[in-house]
Amino acid sequence: MRIAIDAMGGDHAPQSTVEGAIAAAEEWTDTTIVLVGDTAVIEPLLQGKKLKNLVLHHTTEMIEAEDEPVKAVRRKKDASMVVAGRMVKEREADAMISAGNTGALMTTGLLVVGRMKGIERPALAPMIPTMDGAGVLALDLGANMDASPEQLVQYAVMGSIYRSKVHGLSEPSVGLLNVGTEAMKGNELTKAAYPLLEQAPIRFVGNVEARDVLLRPCDVIVCDGFAGNIMLKSMEGTASVVMKTLKQEFMRNVFTKLAAAVVKKGVMQLRQKMDYTEHGAAPLLGLNGLVLKSHGSSNGIAIKNAVRQARLALKNDLVNSISTEISKGSEM
Amino acid sequence: MRIAIDAMGGDHAPQSTVEGAIAAAEEWTDTTIVLVGDTAVIEPLLQGKKLKNLVLHHTTEMIEAEDEPVKAVRRKKDASMVVAGRMVKEREADAMISAGNTGALMTTGLLVVGRMKGIERPALAPMIPTMDGAGVLALDLGANMDASPEQLVQYAVMGSIYRSKVHGLSEPSVGLLNVGTEAMKGNELTKAAYPLLEQAPIRFVGNVEARDVLLRPCDVIVCDGFAGNIMLKSMEGTASVVMKTLKQEFMRNVFTKLAAAVVKKGVMQLRQKMDYTEHGAAPLLGLNGLVLKSHGSSNGIAIKNAVRQARLALKNDLVNSISTEISKGSEM
Repeated sequence: MRIAIDAMGGDHAPQSTVEGAIAAAEEWTDTTIVLVGDTAVIEPLLQGKKLKNLVLHHTTEMIEAEDEPVKAVRRKKDASMVVAGRMVKEREADAMISAGNTGALMTTGLLVVGRMKGIERPALAPMIPTMDGAGVLALDLGANMDASPEQLVQYAVMGSIYRSKVHGLSEPSVGLLNVGTEAMKGNELTKAAYPLLEQAPIRFVGNVEARDVLLRPCDVIVCDGFAGNIMLKSMEGTASVVMKTLKQEFMRNVFTKLAAAVVKKGVMQLRQKMDYTEHGAAPLLGLNGLVLKSHGSSNGIAIKNAVRQARLALKNDLVNSISTEISKGSEM
Repeated sequence: MRIAIDAMGGDHAPQSTVEGAIAAAEEWTDTTIVLVGDTAVIEPLLQGKKLKNLVLHHTTEMIEAEDEPVKAVRRKKDASMVVAGRMVKEREADAMISAGNTGALMTTGLLVVGRMKGIERPALAPMIPTMDGAGVLALDLGANMDASPEQLVQYAVMGSIYRSKVHGLSEPSVGLLNVGTEAMKGNELTKAAYPLLEQAPIRFVGNVEARDVLLRPCDVIVCDGFAGNIMLKSMEGTASVVMKTLKQEFMRNVFTKLAAAVVKKGVMQLRQKMDYTEHGAAPLLGLNGLVLKSHGSSNGIAIKNAVRQARLALKNDLVNSISTEISKGSEM
């Protein structure tokens, strides 16, 4: 299989992407890694390393973090991200990974790779870390701010298949993000989606409140992109503020510093648990090919892990499985 | 002034409401406190205490936490909450306070006290605790799951007046809860509301991301009730999980227990800061009278503090100030 990596995308690119590509090519010799980007900056980072299954694909442009997504994707035809997308579209690569501009990657997915037949809107599906370490796949987390009830059902089906194909869960449970657990709770969207989710070919476990998500009430949670963003950012903000305040408290005097040393390991573990950047790349589901979004701050290890995810998804025929299920739905 | 307290509402009622009523009547002799509820259970709790400005108003029914709000308010005409609402409606009381069923109190506000002329939907406006202790007034937090752009503007105006009249802020800043800070970010609702908020008679400071709310980016934040609930519950859930995990870490062995003792005070302070039940009662804004929702777990001190808030709002003519501003808006 061939996996294209947008070598120029991410806060630490191309150092991180090249490191990740080398590590992945070394570990999985059955996989060809295509590093897409400016060979003039990539080659020196290879430090003379030659691997049969690591190839470079030269591009002259790149999409910056501040670029306006749609404009950038339309105008920069030779940007590393866009070229990687085109390789997926034209079956020159089986999957692509990028740690670059999220909006631009979603646009690349939509305009370059293309929507899957029957899918109204593709969705971005990161893992939300949970206290037991298992995580909840949440979608949509920002690809579409508004959603229809039917779109939430498609998110549920796609998320369910992802968790079963890539994470090996049998019959993953799906919850609907809502303001209460009773069936009739919520806004117009969730009230209309609830009965549709009950009919969908998934294991629907009902409404899930935002305060319970960290306790892993389900394997997949569906929501519109706006509500999903509010949830994720509220969690991040709270965790960060609590950690920062604790740190200040621990730095107060020599006794608190000693106390800090004693519990440091536990606190670090907690911090790591809460850090959703540790939980792998987020798939963009509902496209005509596999696109994975690595966190902007990804290092080489994170990029290598994204390759691992892509391999699992490809081996288990994720995209075709989703397509088959969705086409059944549209026949109904 | 006369303030009616729903003596039967709240997890610790009537003990808490009676205690709070006595403390308030003792502190503010210019204020008559009307305890509305079953005198057979209230009187023994007074323990023979006689205060000129503390009167009882007997009712035979009460609304339970599990009651379906609209049904309960319609059927239980002599419920303590409904009777207190009727007193406000008929100007027998200047304000009412309840720690009972939130949904039922919102229904009482709407159906018994009545909507203010020009207001589309009243809003529940609790304070979100912030790290600097000052807090952000957030509305709507659950009175209406869906909102129109025009409703968000009314929330902004009402919240602004509340912060200036009750908290003494001059020109409080108002933010719009959103997924990014740029003007064109968001869903259909926030995109339509943004230009209207720019025109409104408030100090609008633009979009505010959920992750920044705890850093107090503004004095008032507006959102639809669904998004507001997701934000608040995500914050609560995260804070609670982090605190619980820390506690486990501190209990691990004798060294961590010693460490815990050293930082205990700081952690307790943080916990208190994060606890939104410590931040007073939430007004229901947009009604023809003053209605305050005390947290369900309120003790006597919280009830007394709600009386303090009600007095401030009454002294500063909150309801009329809102009504005047809203009627200007509807003339435009």
